[in-house]
Amino acid sequence: MGKERLVVIGGDAAGMSAASKVRREDPERQIIVFERGPHTSYSACGLPYYIAGMIKDSDDLVARTPEKFKEKYNIDARVGHEVLHIDPDAGKVRVVERESGREFDEGYDQLLIATGGVPICPDLPGSGAQAIFGLSTLQSGIRVRQFVDQVSPRRAVVVGGGYIGLEMAEALVRRGLEVSLVERAEQVMATLDPDMGSLVSDALREVGVTLYLEESLTGFEVADGRVKAVVTDKRTLPADMVILGMGVQPNSTLAENAGLKLGEKKAIQVDSRMRTSKAGIWAAGDCVESYHLLMQRPVHIALGTVANKQGTVAGINLAGGDATFPGVIGTAVSKICKYEVARTGLREADLKVMNMPYVEAVIKSRTRAGYYPGAGRITVKLMAHKEDGRLLGGQIVGLEGAAKRIDVLATAITAGLTAQHLVDLDLSYAPPFSPVWDPVQTAARQILNKL
Amino acid sequence: MGKERLVVIGGDAAGMSAASKVRREDPERQIIVFERGPHTSYSACGLPYYIAGMIKDSDDLVARTPEKFKEKYNIDARVGHEVLHIDPDAGKVRVVERESGREFDEGYDQLLIATGGVPICPDLPGSGAQAIFGLSTLQSGIRVRQFVDQVSPRRAVVVGGGYIGLEMAEALVRRGLEVSLVERAEQVMATLDPDMGSLVSDALREVGVTLYLEESLTGFEVADGRVKAVVTDKRTLPADMVILGMGVQPNSTLAENAGLKLGEKKAIQVDSRMRTSKAGIWAAGDCVESYHLLMQRPVHIALGTVANKQGTVAGINLAGGDATFPGVIGTAVSKICKYEVARTGLREADLKVMNMPYVEAVIKSRTRAGYYPGAGRITVKLMAHKEDGRLLGGQIVGLEGAAKRIDVLATAITAGLTAQHLVDLDLSYAPPFSPVWDPVQTAARQILNKL
Repeated sequence: MGKERLVVIGGDAAGMSAASKVRREDPERQIIVFERGPHTSYSACGLPYYIAGMIKDSDDLVARTPEKFKEKYNIDARVGHEVLHIDPDAGKVRVVERESGREFDEGYDQLLIATGGVPICPDLPGSGAQAIFGLSTLQSGIRVRQFVDQVSPRRAVVVGGGYIGLEMAEALVRRGLEVSLVERAEQVMATLDPDMGSLVSDALREVGVTLYLEESLTGFEVADGRVKAVVTDKRTLPADMVILGMGVQPNSTLAENAGLKLGEKKAIQVDSRMRTSKAGIWAAGDCVESYHLLMQRPVHIALGTVANKQGTVAGINLAGGDATFPGVIGTAVSKICKYEVARTGLREADLKVMNMPYVEAVIKSRTRAGYYPGAGRITVKLMAHKEDGRLLGGQIVGLEGAAKRIDVLATAITAGLTAQHLVDLDLSYAPPFSPVWDPVQTAARQILNKL
Repeated sequence: MGKERLVVIGGDAAGMSAASKVRREDPERQIIVFERGPHTSYSACGLPYYIAGMIKDSDDLVARTPEKFKEKYNIDARVGHEVLHIDPDAGKVRVVERESGREFDEGYDQLLIATGGVPICPDLPGSGAQAIFGLSTLQSGIRVRQFVDQVSPRRAVVVGGGYIGLEMAEALVRRGLEVSLVERAEQVMATLDPDMGSLVSDALREVGVTLYLEESLTGFEVADGRVKAVVTDKRTLPADMVILGMGVQPNSTLAENAGLKLGEKKAIQVDSRMRTSKAGIWAAGDCVESYHLLMQRPVHIALGTVANKQGTVAGINLAGGDATFPGVIGTAVSKICKYEVARTGLREADLKVMNMPYVEAVIKSRTRAGYYPGAGRITVKLMAHKEDGRLLGGQIVGLEGAAKRIDVLATAITAGLTAQHLVDLDLSYAPPFSPVWDPVQTAARQILNKL
């Protein structure tokens, strides 16, 4: 490979994982990364905790600075550089150095697009006002924290009850704000079935968040350029600040303009080796599609784990190796104050769409032996194929120690295990960790009674 | 089945799981349980926490009393009744009511032996003295707690560094005693490889336990019938009380005398449906062999989870159903003060005995994202087959939140997954729960580098 030049667009999880992997495999490769923001390799997932004040310094969220990439990895990571245009035929990108406004072309032998995602921001009356925040980059998180620190807002409205919305609701409660949350579905956490989502709604109310369910955002009231209220189809909610938690969409405009094929939700189409539809151009992270192993179709899932894995796979292949990213099953976990929430695989809603015959069980148990101090409630929902008992999905809501059990279900589902297999598994037990039958096994036993 | 009579010997986990399962499936069956102690269905695993004072009342460890079994389940659970002899040809057992000394015969159509295990107590000078305690039944735990409460001993010596020994060392430290621990191996926790066991040794020293490793018990010094010191091949350790934590052996004398085949460590031989070598006689729990799925041979493992599962399997079959207990892979977990320890599958020592080519990786990571409050150290050791990458064993030592990850490894190993499969798994991630790459996946990535 030698002196070939790799250009990477985007300096966060996927881009820098790939760049680092290429460097490790190929000391000679020229690697240039263009990042339009001021930071590289930071944990966007940590932003709610930074805004909550649980993490003091935004630098703590940065895994590696551009300087470190240059000095330690010989990767030319140029922050404040935005790629304006990709020219696949000429094999070059048009770049602007944002501070100076200077534009220049950079040629590449291989290109990796890792432009990430952007928060969905509906085009509604007032949506351009100040104090309406979406969360994506480290910079966007710093802006929110500065606003809370300096302006001392009293009332916040969070629009959208997904992971970011809920984690931000908690963060702002911790900062002493009155927090309301608007969600158009009947429950928060639409990635769970409504019966499990209702447990999360209860948890949010318990920590002091006022919920407005089955209400849709229609716009914002603005005064002096700053948001004053959130307007729904049912009411007007006064707000000193607004957090948009309506999801993330792939940042795929550059790719689209370069003629690359887009797919699900306008995410960039890639194969399992992270190649796009044009030779020499690769893509990874929140801007691409992922294959859902159970739905057997591409989906768009924006997650740090997936971005890291896809970046690593792209890096191995870019360095001449052979790696594949097999896909996802939609595993996710979140902590809302003392409550833990996790999910993997298919929901009942998915199974119905797929016309798959299934049985489900919902059980209540404890995170530890009932007599052991700190044993907390845990609810486990499990779905299995009605004919062969194959595990298809699981959801967990509970107190401390509950949620990471989802990984057992994710592993079992991926391996094609049945409810009987799960019951038979030799899982660990001691009173500080679990009842004798781990709650996921109790759920599986319940499934067996229904098969 | 109707009015057939099932007799169960032993009223703890295996026996009562079986009896309850039979009752659920067959309302007509006559079920008599003989338990020589005063309690049924208690958590022996909870005894160290009861002795430590973390659990107030011994009744909290009892899941169901004999009265409850009688009233709610119509199971005739007779405590204080010891079976003296089994007569397989006549289909009856000889029983003594311990309080009155009255003996009688009881006929059975089916017999389940669930006599459990007994602590290994070496026949050494002074071993019969007072204040030397083995831990098995609830009664034995109550005796230890009463001794600590009433005699206020100052110095305790624990002999044996397995799970019970370590949990008791912690319990007695919590009660304010000076605790020493004698272990003949080079490290405590012989179910781990020595490199991981040494982390546990360090943890014990940190909480104030004095370790005497590579020392063998040779006897006890006794005065006025009570133990005064523990004697090893290297020193004499003054002791006001002694805990024997040298393991558990199957309580199989009754079975042996009845002509049943015994196997590994004199545990009762059973097939996967929990049938013994004699028709009509079944056995389950700490008194039987279990099949080790990776060693592909029977082993003796005394564990509450296994006993519950085997009891349930026996119960289903006794009720005319068809269930099997496929086996174990040696999963276990324990908490020593703030440290968590877990293991599953094969150790390096096992792999060497089996002549299996393997690679291993030991990695250090964090239980949460590094910047998240409370992120603690975790060390993961992973073993995989050198040729096909199949996962073979794992060990974890770490702080809060570390150990339950062993269940992912247990699931992956049982399903036959490789290190690459583990890297590819869609495991859950959020900063309060894990780094972006879960520590078990970081270990698997390290394995890939070595394959």
